[in-house]
Amino acid sequence: MSDTHIVGKRVPAANANEIVTGQARYCPDIDLPGMLFGKLLYSPYARARVIRLDVSKARKIPGVAAIITHADIPGENSYLYAAADQPLLVIDEVRYQGEALAAVAAVDEHTADIALAAIEVEYEQLPGIFDPVEAMHPDADQIVPGEKNVLSSHSFSTGDVEAAIATADVVIQNKYQTQCAEHAFLETEGGVGLVEDDGRITVYSSCQAPHRDRMQIARALAMPESMVRVITPSIGGAFGAKDEAHVQIHAALLAHATGQPVRLIRGRRESILTHVKRHPFIVEYTTAATSDGKLVAVKARAIADAGPYTNATQEVLHKFGEFVGGPYKIVNLEVELIGVRTNNPITGAFRGFGAPQAAFVYESQMDDLARKLGMDPLQIRLLNGVETGTKTYTGVLIREGSAMKASLRKAAEMIAWQKRHSCERQPAPHLRRGFGIATTIKGSGAGRGIADHASAALEMHRDGSVILHSAAADMGQGIVTVMTQIAAERLGIDLASITVTNADTSRSPDAGPTCASRQTMVSGNAVLKAANTIRDSLLTMAARKTKTEKHRLDLKVGHLTIDGKPHELSVKDLALRASNWGIPLHSESLVHFEYPEDAPMATYRFAQEVFQFGTQIAQVLVDCETGQVTVERLIAVHDAGKMINPGGVYGQIEGGIAQGIGYALTEELIVEAGLTQNPSLENYIVPLSLDIPEIEIEVLEIPEPFGAPLGAKGIAESPLVPTAPAIRNAICDAINKPLYRLPMTAERILSIGDD
Amino acid sequence: MSDTHIVGKRVPAANANEIVTGQARYCPDIDLPGMLFGKLLYSPYARARVIRLDVSKARKIPGVAAIITHADIPGENSYLYAAADQPLLVIDEVRYQGEALAAVAAVDEHTADIALAAIEVEYEQLPGIFDPVEAMHPDADQIVPGEKNVLSSHSFSTGDVEAAIATADVVIQNKYQTQCAEHAFLETEGGVGLVEDDGRITVYSSCQAPHRDRMQIARALAMPESMVRVITPSIGGAFGAKDEAHVQIHAALLAHATGQPVRLIRGRRESILTHVKRHPFIVEYTTAATSDGKLVAVKARAIADAGPYTNATQEVLHKFGEFVGGPYKIVNLEVELIGVRTNNPITGAFRGFGAPQAAFVYESQMDDLARKLGMDPLQIRLLNGVETGTKTYTGVLIREGSAMKASLRKAAEMIAWQKRHSCERQPAPHLRRGFGIATTIKGSGAGRGIADHASAALEMHRDGSVILHSAAADMGQGIVTVMTQIAAERLGIDLASITVTNADTSRSPDAGPTCASRQTMVSGNAVLKAANTIRDSLLTMAARKTKTEKHRLDLKVGHLTIDGKPHELSVKDLALRASNWGIPLHSESLVHFEYPEDAPMATYRFAQEVFQFGTQIAQVLVDCETGQVTVERLIAVHDAGKMINPGGVYGQIEGGIAQGIGYALTEELIVEAGLTQNPSLENYIVPLSLDIPEIEIEVLEIPEPFGAPLGAKGIAESPLVPTAPAIRNAICDAINKPLYRLPMTAERILSIGDD
Repeated sequence: MSDTHIVGKRVPAANANEIVTGQARYCPDIDLPGMLFGKLLYSPYARARVIRLDVSKARKIPGVAAIITHADIPGENSYLYAAADQPLLVIDEVRYQGEALAAVAAVDEHTADIALAAIEVEYEQLPGIFDPVEAMHPDADQIVPGEKNVLSSHSFSTGDVEAAIATADVVIQNKYQTQCAEHAFLETEGGVGLVEDDGRITVYSSCQAPHRDRMQIARALAMPESMVRVITPSIGGAFGAKDEAHVQIHAALLAHATGQPVRLIRGRRESILTHVKRHPFIVEYTTAATSDGKLVAVKARAIADAGPYTNATQEVLHKFGEFVGGPYKIVNLEVELIGVRTNNPITGAFRGFGAPQAAFVYESQMDDLARKLGMDPLQIRLLNGVETGTKTYTGVLIREGSAMKASLRKAAEMIAWQKRHSCERQPAPHLRRGFGIATTIKGSGAGRGIADHASAALEMHRDGSVILHSAAADMGQGIVTVMTQIAAERLGIDLASITVTNADTSRSPDAGPTCASRQTMVSGNAVLKAANTIRDSLLTMAARKTKTEKHRLDLKVGHLTIDGKPHELSVKDLALRASNWGIPLHSESLVHFEYPEDAPMATYRFAQEVFQFGTQIAQVLVDCETGQVTVERLIAVHDAGKMINPGGVYGQIEGGIAQGIGYALTEELIVEAGLTQNPSLENYIVPLSLDIPEIEIEVLEIPEPFGAPLGAKGIAESPLVPTAPAIRNAICDAINKPLYRLPMTAERILSIGDD
Repeated sequence: MSDTHIVGKRVPAANANEIVTGQARYCPDIDLPGMLFGKLLYSPYARARVIRLDVSKARKIPGVAAIITHADIPGENSYLYAAADQPLLVIDEVRYQGEALAAVAAVDEHTADIALAAIEVEYEQLPGIFDPVEAMHPDADQIVPGEKNVLSSHSFSTGDVEAAIATADVVIQNKYQTQCAEHAFLETEGGVGLVEDDGRITVYSSCQAPHRDRMQIARALAMPESMVRVITPSIGGAFGAKDEAHVQIHAALLAHATGQPVRLIRGRRESILTHVKRHPFIVEYTTAATSDGKLVAVKARAIADAGPYTNATQEVLHKFGEFVGGPYKIVNLEVELIGVRTNNPITGAFRGFGAPQAAFVYESQMDDLARKLGMDPLQIRLLNGVETGTKTYTGVLIREGSAMKASLRKAAEMIAWQKRHSCERQPAPHLRRGFGIATTIKGSGAGRGIADHASAALEMHRDGSVILHSAAADMGQGIVTVMTQIAAERLGIDLASITVTNADTSRSPDAGPTCASRQTMVSGNAVLKAANTIRDSLLTMAARKTKTEKHRLDLKVGHLTIDGKPHELSVKDLALRASNWGIPLHSESLVHFEYPEDAPMATYRFAQEVFQFGTQIAQVLVDCETGQVTVERLIAVHDAGKMINPGGVYGQIEGGIAQGIGYALTEELIVEAGLTQNPSLENYIVPLSLDIPEIEIEVLEIPEPFGAPLGAKGIAESPLVPTAPAIRNAICDAINKPLYRLPMTAERILSIGDD
């Protein structure tokens, strides 16, 4: 694909023009005739028994069209992600602050607010459990009756960890804590439900998984899935939180109850208080090594706070465990993964899905080890790093791993690593400068053994224009642009000739959720396959017409080429001929995330097998009087396989790093006795543009050899992963003290003090 | 398929409940925020030069959002069916009464009417040509400059007709005239256009060919087809007239011009005045036979009045010629087919597409021949009729033709044909009773050599519910029901488990137009193919699970069966297993109208090769004082192949006969010097329910052996074909005088008089 003319070029995002001109329609922009406004009544308590829930007075308020409680749900009163233990509307006990008890639909927002206030709820406050360790105690109160507080407990080991530790030259053991973090997407959760003439329910949903949403809505309504249609309008970010359903089910319930369209949008406070967060982890971690820095064992025990319900806790822990040793050759590894219910906020999927927590731990530990051994942090990483052909401790053969060391070397080169300390280390008495490096691993796809497929359809019309149908949700990350480029490349047409319908469960078959850095690979392959079918029809016709062997033909920039030279036949001509001959240029494909048939299954269940490696180096300046950290430089070298749209890849890297800086330094949902203290973007501190340094990016385009469309792989999550440990290591380098807790706020840095 | 449990059962039409409860939404029911009302300005003259067309004053009227003329059309100013000679908006000359000159969009209908009245048009009336024979004269004025008045002229012959006639024992020669007829669908032509946020144009179109509409709209707007979406809401009848585009293009143009939704619906008067009608034919027809009634030659010359533009004239004439000899063995045949432009109303597709005109002629002729030879009309038809294995004069091998004689025999048996004259022949001095028989042939599909394909997609969800995507337009005839039954049958589920998306060019690929009695065969096969793929996946899984060979398994009424016995595994269980295993139950098919590969091409170009035969017998009572004809009994025996939905087949037969009775007796667009005299259903006389006798129907279920889904074939058109000649022959039997012109109104019968 060296001569691609669209793939590999920086192109504007497919809907960039609509977004910047305000034409793009997000859930809150949807306005339908007779539309009602939906609101949910949320619990103010972290744990309380509901003694009485009386909506009768509220229902009588003029302008209130419907109020529903758990008793009014026609089907299943639960979300369904990994488990079905979280009710849509509380029955008799609230288990976290912000849990919903009732849903209101009214003629306007004000009336909906009045109705919420008129709902009478009598609570009996109950003592909550807020410490996961306390919740694990055998005598602890059951948070969900009939369900253990330890909702998930898995162990995995390989080699002989205890023996390796016993005989190691050096052992580092620390305890880490990571915070509860908020996704802080621009657009809060929302949905608009409506009833079609034939009784079908259509739901506009700000989501990552339209087909899974459809399933959840259908089961809540006790309707067949075929009677439910989910459409994603423009989506203003998701970062994992919209993989799990939120209010779109309630919007559907209210539309069903009233027969009218209902728009239900969470306000920012509601969004922060009620929906899934990044799991806080407590990790005990032991690294054992030889005196020359060779890792011999890793042992980790991680406790993740699930909040009261299951959500993605098991899966996040599983991925944490998969990457807990980092991108290093480790023969002896032992990991214990525990997910615990508490009355804290619910937690779930968040960009990185366990990998950022793991990376903070293993890369902090690596620096501590280097410091203890007096080694260069770069060298110890190069010494232990995986490479192509390494079999990981999870039993996976790394088919392409050269980016691990290449990214380390490239990043080091970019900042002149060996000369880094030639800069001013203490530019003022209270200021300290430091450098930190972190190198990480992240996988693509759901993992082997888990259903992971996508469909896409392409239609070329007689005028050469094309419709691309895909249900792969685009939340701003750019999958639509990527798919369009792949289709245009293979069909020899320009981007403007392609119109995309995305995502609508009634128009395109399941592409699976947009998560796990999977869509470029899976939906990318689906589009490639469909495009190749149409391409083949066009070339067959062209071969017949030009009396030329097909292998000499290609489609480029609108034209047929023979032996690389443009021919007078255009793609449009070929499309018209096909139409006249009754040859439909239409193809729908189905692809699975592919694994080589001859590769053995990993010893770690559901292990991913396609990896993105990346190295980041942070240069920070710490104000020892205030604890304030300024990230002065951020070098990022990432492996994206072949880039389809470099603009998108660079955007993901920049965005991931910005989010990583927040994760490192400021972002923390402060929860006291289950109650969130900072449910607002005024005091939940997301970095602003001035907090982000110029990011120096280098992308290693090492084509993924297996199962990747044109060699491309996902880049959505990996850039976030190394940022926090790189900054941590830079701060520690500056202040010469270790840090074991995220975020590394000014207060925490001050409390550790200056050497 | 002897043990089918859904196919072959009478089921209610898929949307019957919505229709009878008024929930179904037709174009006029579509109401969108900010919607404007569209109207067209139509010419009051049949032919006139447009000296001046000034919309400037009209544009200034408050509430007028846009007025467009030919100069404002961004793309091609023409319809595109067989040719592109008909403008969307007149440029400089109107060529038939009702031709559109301008399109208005205003805030309400009243304002639109005021705007129409304020458009200043200065015409110079021109002498029109209204007689096709006159138009054929070499010196006749050209109706469309640069185009011959004879727009289509084709001849076909086989054998030696002149020699056969010269040596025949008996020769019958007559001249026939058939009328210009109105489709008189319940719902007039309509469309609603709107501009989507991303600039795409969506058009709700009351049409038979959504994908062809899309093409026409795209070229008028100079937009790629991928940026145009056509949706058919519920459609209140079409009968061929909505195969050609009408106002949906103008609705799109107005939406594009205003940026607002525009609804454009023709009133009844506009509908009658402006859109395509059934071609009036003038036919000179010669039949030659031996003295024992054996046909030896047929010679026909047909002139069809096209109105000024091409539309479907060539194709209708072609089908007329294909069936001009009727379902009879004829060795020597000669046909000349001439399509002529006039300034009469435009003509186009209408149920039967040339076959009703042909049948009126050949079956009238057959009775005249029988009378001349003193033979029984039944016997002479049996003597000459085709059968399985007959090679027709068009060169087609009839693969299944047993219904020709079977239908004759069955119909004769039902009315006790040989004893028919034992009834009271003259129940009162002024009343005469008579019996007439007609047996006809009609084909399915576009004809061999013409692109004729359809796609359909099925998705089964984890709850066993299914979505069926098809763009096959359902105008009330029931293709959605048929497709649903086929899918349900093959998937072993009930009809309620299937939801259909129909028809939406953005949701389902091209199924081709709903015309030519083709959809049951083509889209039926597409659904069958898609369902078989999913069925195979389900059975493969079931075979693995039950450890049973697949050939012993079936899916019936929701359950797996092994050797015909229900097994505890339900289809739903299998669907859930598939979902859990990551096996998507999704299939999209593409099928072509199939022809046996070993059958030679017909000598007649684009000949159809799947036939429906049918016989009807009419018993009439003629009032010789008033000329009034009462159809007392109507026996109808038709061949539908295997019936998918008997209710639908019977409905088509009843509806076809009702339309045939109107065609026979009362329906005629009276056009004088190009001006329609009866543009209203008050004086264009469609039969009412009291005019229709009890229709006695027998359906011959003779499975079509080739290319038919489960043996089914189309039945949409054939029931209309024999009605008029059966009634004609009955009237002639009653009054003992021949009739050569349709309709056989009271006035015409009186003018012939009583013997």
